[in-house]
Amino acid sequence: MSDPFVSIQLQRDDPLPLYRQLYLHIEKAILSGRLEPGQKLPPIRRLAARLGVNTVTVVQAYRCLERAGLAAARVGSGTFVAYQRKAIPDQPVPPGTVEPDQPGLDLPDSWQVALPPEAINFATLTPDAALFPVDDFQAIINQVLNRDRGEAFGYQESQGYYPLRCSAAAYLTQSGIKCGAETIQVISGAQQGIDLIARSLIMPGDRILTESPTYTGAMAAFRSRGAQIHAVPLQDDGIDLEALENQLKIQQPKLIYVMTNFQNPTGICYSPEKQKALLDICRRWDVLLIEDDSFTELAYNREQGQAIKAQDEDDRVIYIKSFSKILMPGLRLAFMLAPQRLLPQLMAAKHIADISTSGLVQRVFDVYLRRDLWKTHLEYMKECYRERYHHILQAIQDSFPPEVSFRAPEGGLCLWVEGYPGLSSNRLYEACLAHQVVIAPGSHFFPDNRDSRFFRLSFAALSLEDISRGIPIIAQQLNNLYNPAYHPGQRFSPLL
Amino acid sequence: MSDPFVSIQLQRDDPLPLYRQLYLHIEKAILSGRLEPGQKLPPIRRLAARLGVNTVTVVQAYRCLERAGLAAARVGSGTFVAYQRKAIPDQPVPPGTVEPDQPGLDLPDSWQVALPPEAINFATLTPDAALFPVDDFQAIINQVLNRDRGEAFGYQESQGYYPLRCSAAAYLTQSGIKCGAETIQVISGAQQGIDLIARSLIMPGDRILTESPTYTGAMAAFRSRGAQIHAVPLQDDGIDLEALENQLKIQQPKLIYVMTNFQNPTGICYSPEKQKALLDICRRWDVLLIEDDSFTELAYNREQGQAIKAQDEDDRVIYIKSFSKILMPGLRLAFMLAPQRLLPQLMAAKHIADISTSGLVQRVFDVYLRRDLWKTHLEYMKECYRERYHHILQAIQDSFPPEVSFRAPEGGLCLWVEGYPGLSSNRLYEACLAHQVVIAPGSHFFPDNRDSRFFRLSFAALSLEDISRGIPIIAQQLNNLYNPAYHPGQRFSPLL
Repeated sequence: MSDPFVSIQLQRDDPLPLYRQLYLHIEKAILSGRLEPGQKLPPIRRLAARLGVNTVTVVQAYRCLERAGLAAARVGSGTFVAYQRKAIPDQPVPPGTVEPDQPGLDLPDSWQVALPPEAINFATLTPDAALFPVDDFQAIINQVLNRDRGEAFGYQESQGYYPLRCSAAAYLTQSGIKCGAETIQVISGAQQGIDLIARSLIMPGDRILTESPTYTGAMAAFRSRGAQIHAVPLQDDGIDLEALENQLKIQQPKLIYVMTNFQNPTGICYSPEKQKALLDICRRWDVLLIEDDSFTELAYNREQGQAIKAQDEDDRVIYIKSFSKILMPGLRLAFMLAPQRLLPQLMAAKHIADISTSGLVQRVFDVYLRRDLWKTHLEYMKECYRERYHHILQAIQDSFPPEVSFRAPEGGLCLWVEGYPGLSSNRLYEACLAHQVVIAPGSHFFPDNRDSRFFRLSFAALSLEDISRGIPIIAQQLNNLYNPAYHPGQRFSPLL
Repeated sequence: MSDPFVSIQLQRDDPLPLYRQLYLHIEKAILSGRLEPGQKLPPIRRLAARLGVNTVTVVQAYRCLERAGLAAARVGSGTFVAYQRKAIPDQPVPPGTVEPDQPGLDLPDSWQVALPPEAINFATLTPDAALFPVDDFQAIINQVLNRDRGEAFGYQESQGYYPLRCSAAAYLTQSGIKCGAETIQVISGAQQGIDLIARSLIMPGDRILTESPTYTGAMAAFRSRGAQIHAVPLQDDGIDLEALENQLKIQQPKLIYVMTNFQNPTGICYSPEKQKALLDICRRWDVLLIEDDSFTELAYNREQGQAIKAQDEDDRVIYIKSFSKILMPGLRLAFMLAPQRLLPQLMAAKHIADISTSGLVQRVFDVYLRRDLWKTHLEYMKECYRERYHHILQAIQDSFPPEVSFRAPEGGLCLWVEGYPGLSSNRLYEACLAHQVVIAPGSHFFPDNRDSRFFRLSFAALSLEDISRGIPIIAQQLNNLYNPAYHPGQRFSPLL
């Protein structure tokens, strides 16, 4: 078989980027069979040199091949053709070959990141699929289809299927948030909720205050509307109120975005006093608050806290409740509880965005909530997570260098680790990735994407064995990157 | 039982609109049981007079009650409490009582429109739920869940589940559009596709050209990004190319939005010559074309046409393919085929919008396409629709006044009717609604929302009996509104 790489000619005057041209050449060779499954692709440097392009161009092309399921990288040995034409349709996709469906980082740019399939993933907050209550859901899907037939597949009201809004309202009322079905907007996941708020309320140039660090997906949604994000530091009991008031004075922001229980990524919970003080400040400054809640139920070492929304007497908080992290993210279902005056705008935005959330999923989740299967499952998940939580804490204590510290959160799915002074967590990410371990570097969570010594470790997707294997690898990389020349007082790496 | 309306006090200094305050008072009375199911609400004029508010306020409050499933209007007799507390959860919702899930107009503002539950709906393009292939889907859902278990409920790649992209690419290739899985973006319905394009490519002030009349949801998505819409008239064989070139000269638009087969609302198909000429113009002016395709397969009286995308050699067309109108709209699933250079932006927008489309739905639809069940279903739907199509044509011929005309389309799901000169189709809409028949007035389809003598009649959701009952009612209203004083040459009603 002739070497299909000999004939590749990239055109610099083609509007298509060079990496894309290279990708298309190799894709063609794979799909035509000129490159066979298992065949090794040329080493990056060699191919770059031969084509007269930057190595980055080849890396990008290879990553695209991985994303398309056409190639797979094996650390230390190179990239291989992984495409296997399927002989029989309707068969399950063989794991690790064609399907590039591995969840990446739970970050808006995760679609650009191809992770090695066997990597130990401390970056994702997506629960282990083996824990999903598939049997319960399958039974309810059948029950709903037998009951509602074609109606389950029709368009739904944009605000959401009414009985589901009733059962969601009942659930939230039990959690201390009194509400009725008519103030609930069903959304296709929390991310959509943040995005609907952004498109309904934010104009280009508007300023938004967030906690620092904060959730990447929220920043991306706000920025997609041209907002400027200003970060307010977190303290152990919630956002720094003095810094917040200073920012309110300077920025006159449109809204403030917070996570009050087991904040992502820090795991911090707001104290009741701080919740109250934050609401007071919002009232005084007449500013909207978005409260994003995915983790409140996951309290291992304390009683379950309340949402700020529970005290929102003058209807100033938009509350987003997601079950993705405890139930199943692929449902694409969450709830938004918004001030009455904002509901019409939010509903209109929902209609423009996708008309309505899947009716079948809404009907199934309605039955699931009514039957209290949710509560049983939550207890089960809490037990699983609690075990992992204690396990990871112990593993870290056993193997991390003493210069590395963190404050153990009282719940949630992740730990926010403060490396030793001088650590670059971006470098740590690269070093771990080379050993098939993925962490989430702090740069993902700061509005200015600055490198720092902080990083996030999540145990949502990992077995006890994964944790036991992965933590010592991270510890080893922390040791390898340690440079005693840095002074303990120096907070950030001067390398970046 | 005391009259709960006596105690209502509306506060003009409350930031909540008066209608909303009134709604909340009545909702409370219903939910507390002070107003009982079946009880009549006060006549609109009388309540408005008693409260000292405009009748519009009461109408809005009653509409909200209807939308919330708490009340139902009976034409000619008033509005009644319709809420029934459910004794046993998990039971099917009794039709016509609690569930306000009736599809409205397929328009972005449909969530504001409460239709009488027994109305004959010529406005919706949503297929009759009784025609949905529920059994096939139920079997495949079970098969997929048995095969993939929890994986079916995990996050999916933002671009879409890879095997589904393969089967979609195979389907499109069969329809003449050669493409690979890696250029397909899975979307949660065609509306989301238009919206992703709007948010990726449009900046405030950008100009967009559309056909006139056109699809309301597209206009809403473009406008949500601050675009200006400029309309180009349609001719029998597609958009008016001379007018288009004039607009291109003046507006320098960012993109052109068209539906080339059975255009909504007119039912027009582009001739092959016009398709080619339109592509040439786009190339000459270097402008993007969005082609929105929901109906191509529904050719009753001609061979199935091709999409412009099939001839798109220089990758200038963003093609959106929806199956909602032929299969089941509640799946919330469609495909977008975009030029390579735009895919990264569109994928990023998808991730910000809702991370990914439901994995279960994607897996199920993948199997459905691979098994060719889709083709069998399409043939079945075509037969059903063809029968309705001939039936509505005959019914119109039998009963509409001769001054009303239309050009029978060769397929699709709707007819675009041209009333006699002087007709206001907004008034016709009101007159028909009073007789429990719903039409879509032309004003919904023109970018400037102008009233006109045009209206759209769809037969997607209607049985032959519905059509036989409904068309004579519309005919009667057409006769009632006829005013011989208008001259035939006068094209639009001077009343609006």
